[in-house]
Amino acid sequence: MLQGFLFSGVSCGIKTKGRDLGIIISETPANAAAVFTKNKFQAAPVIVSKERISKGLARGIVVNSGNANAATGEKGIKDALRMADKLAELSGFSPDEILVASTGVIGIPLPMDKIERGIEKAFSELRSDGFKDFAEAILTTDTRIKMETASMTVEGREIEILGIAKGAGMIEPDMATMLAFILTDASVEQEALKEALKIAVDMSFNRISVDGCQSTNDSVFILANGKAGNRIIKDGQLFEVFLTSLMKVTHSLAMQILQDGEGVTTVFQVEVESAKTDEEALLIAKKVVNSNLVKTAIYGKDPNFGRILAAAGSISSSIEPEKLELYIDDVLIFDKGVPVEFDRGKIFKSDFVRIKLVLNTGSGKAIFYGADLTEDYVRLNAHYTT
Amino acid sequence: MLQGFLFSGVSCGIKTKGRDLGIIISETPANAAAVFTKNKFQAAPVIVSKERISKGLARGIVVNSGNANAATGEKGIKDALRMADKLAELSGFSPDEILVASTGVIGIPLPMDKIERGIEKAFSELRSDGFKDFAEAILTTDTRIKMETASMTVEGREIEILGIAKGAGMIEPDMATMLAFILTDASVEQEALKEALKIAVDMSFNRISVDGCQSTNDSVFILANGKAGNRIIKDGQLFEVFLTSLMKVTHSLAMQILQDGEGVTTVFQVEVESAKTDEEALLIAKKVVNSNLVKTAIYGKDPNFGRILAAAGSISSSIEPEKLELYIDDVLIFDKGVPVEFDRGKIFKSDFVRIKLVLNTGSGKAIFYGADLTEDYVRLNAHYTT
Repeated sequence: MLQGFLFSGVSCGIKTKGRDLGIIISETPANAAAVFTKNKFQAAPVIVSKERISKGLARGIVVNSGNANAATGEKGIKDALRMADKLAELSGFSPDEILVASTGVIGIPLPMDKIERGIEKAFSELRSDGFKDFAEAILTTDTRIKMETASMTVEGREIEILGIAKGAGMIEPDMATMLAFILTDASVEQEALKEALKIAVDMSFNRISVDGCQSTNDSVFILANGKAGNRIIKDGQLFEVFLTSLMKVTHSLAMQILQDGEGVTTVFQVEVESAKTDEEALLIAKKVVNSNLVKTAIYGKDPNFGRILAAAGSISSSIEPEKLELYIDDVLIFDKGVPVEFDRGKIFKSDFVRIKLVLNTGSGKAIFYGADLTEDYVRLNAHYTT
Repeated sequence: MLQGFLFSGVSCGIKTKGRDLGIIISETPANAAAVFTKNKFQAAPVIVSKERISKGLARGIVVNSGNANAATGEKGIKDALRMADKLAELSGFSPDEILVASTGVIGIPLPMDKIERGIEKAFSELRSDGFKDFAEAILTTDTRIKMETASMTVEGREIEILGIAKGAGMIEPDMATMLAFILTDASVEQEALKEALKIAVDMSFNRISVDGCQSTNDSVFILANGKAGNRIIKDGQLFEVFLTSLMKVTHSLAMQILQDGEGVTTVFQVEVESAKTDEEALLIAKKVVNSNLVKTAIYGKDPNFGRILAAAGSISSSIEPEKLELYIDDVLIFDKGVPVEFDRGKIFKSDFVRIKLVLNTGSGKAIFYGADLTEDYVRLNAHYTT
């Protein structure tokens, strides 16, 4: 059981229905780190939280859904600060220790009356088992909550990690916005926490793409409050054990986000092996994942090696067609320059498809994950203002 | 009237219906140049034509649709050479002077019997006014033929340019394949012809994207046979006059390809002004054009500035949100960091939408053209093996 964190999620009327305001509180000061969108257009809460997290400490997070507080100018910054101040007043914590996040429509000022009342209500409902309410309160076009836990024993001490995320469309990372909150009762040194989060995010949230679009609001937060009483995690084997558990949580959340992507029926991975370098392998994997022709082929369960090869070949790389092997779900489809006869009954048998490109030009490798492109994706995004 | 070129287009049974084999012949040796796909996977006809055009001369082109002769290994190369040889035998020209192109499905060997009979038939039907038959013979998922002409008078001599193209999906340039054939009776020096084609292609076919996918077969050919008897075009004002006419043809063909893109209802341009450099402006314009969220917003006639800004902001650039202005169809939507009230009745009034981003950080500019993303695009590409 995760120790020392309280959660709540309430409805305050930003969205037409459902919970839309959530709070997380750590009972003791927690070491904290975060990773934010690299988009040039950063929402007000991102600007505010980025500045605050630089101190490496936090005690509370306040989040709203239904409005991203992005492209809202000076007023947006003032509103984001006010959200944090309100929680600081109620809790008695310093405003500096409160982080803030928002997700939803862009370019519309936050309804601050509703939000302030929402924060009061949410504060009064804080509970150690309120995480499902919180998980609900951060959803936008998501169809379900996204959570994952991991636990480990370090020198006899039980450590818990709980991750809560939302996503949907516009993931890479996202703009309908990908938000993730990771809480642990482990005692982790500030720099180690930052480093672990960076690695875990890079191998999970930065390896998924629903539609190649990057958000103004994407944020991943981690708070480690030390309540587990373990010897502080800093480096060496302790760090590796913690990182492994953290990566289990972030990978699971990333996959949950993809599976719940707008209009998604099938998630797929593109694995590139024996490329010249890991960087090259990643670029190729990403190019294939983001190809609309590959995405529609996956949707149509069409083993269209031509589209996969054309996508892979469209960037400068060490690819030599006469060396390349292509597999779908472990079945060889294209072997060193020419297509191969294969049993169509052996591929596309589940809602997770594995594409593997073996370049045979070096020892670089990478995996990137994507989702198919469907009529529903188009319908949702043509007629919904985010 | 374009002088000294003969055309034909016949049906030889590669496709289930319609013309699928075309020939162009120049009555005299023509200076020739071409631009090909940069994809690492190049179709056999691309490999063959690329080698042949390096000499700068050509007299004939043979093209088939319905089969791309791509990912066909050694046999593919042999077949592409055989296509050219067949036309060389019939015409008495050197095989070296014959270019070859193919478009259609990938990974299936060419039906050479049909093709050889088709070349015989097409050769027997060559006519100076056969260009519409040729234009039909190169189509795949296109719904209509694409042609454009330009004429100019140089020192009393009438010069004609005729362009014929096909495209459809997978444009940037394409893989259902973008093919273009440009014929002129002008006398143009070899290097000047190469240079003019490079510039014209760069400002037209390389500025359009239906789906961000690049083909294995894309080729643009130009033949200049000198029949107009003009003083040879080499540089200076003559070159500029010729280039202007050529660009009129290539721009028109590029727009026709976009308009006929798979499932396309609306074509749009993204113009970036006062960026740091022209290169930066082009990268930003391209990123916005290729955003699935922008494409679906255009389809839904949704003035979603958030998606446009998020796409523009997702790459490293000189963008400063508080300096940026965004216009849709000349109406200011977002002004220096904040959204603007505007009259929705004044935008999205035609099937051509203009998006303009004014960065106010320098003097670089660029335009890139794209098409919306619709349910029909998904349907066509999920259920059609290219």
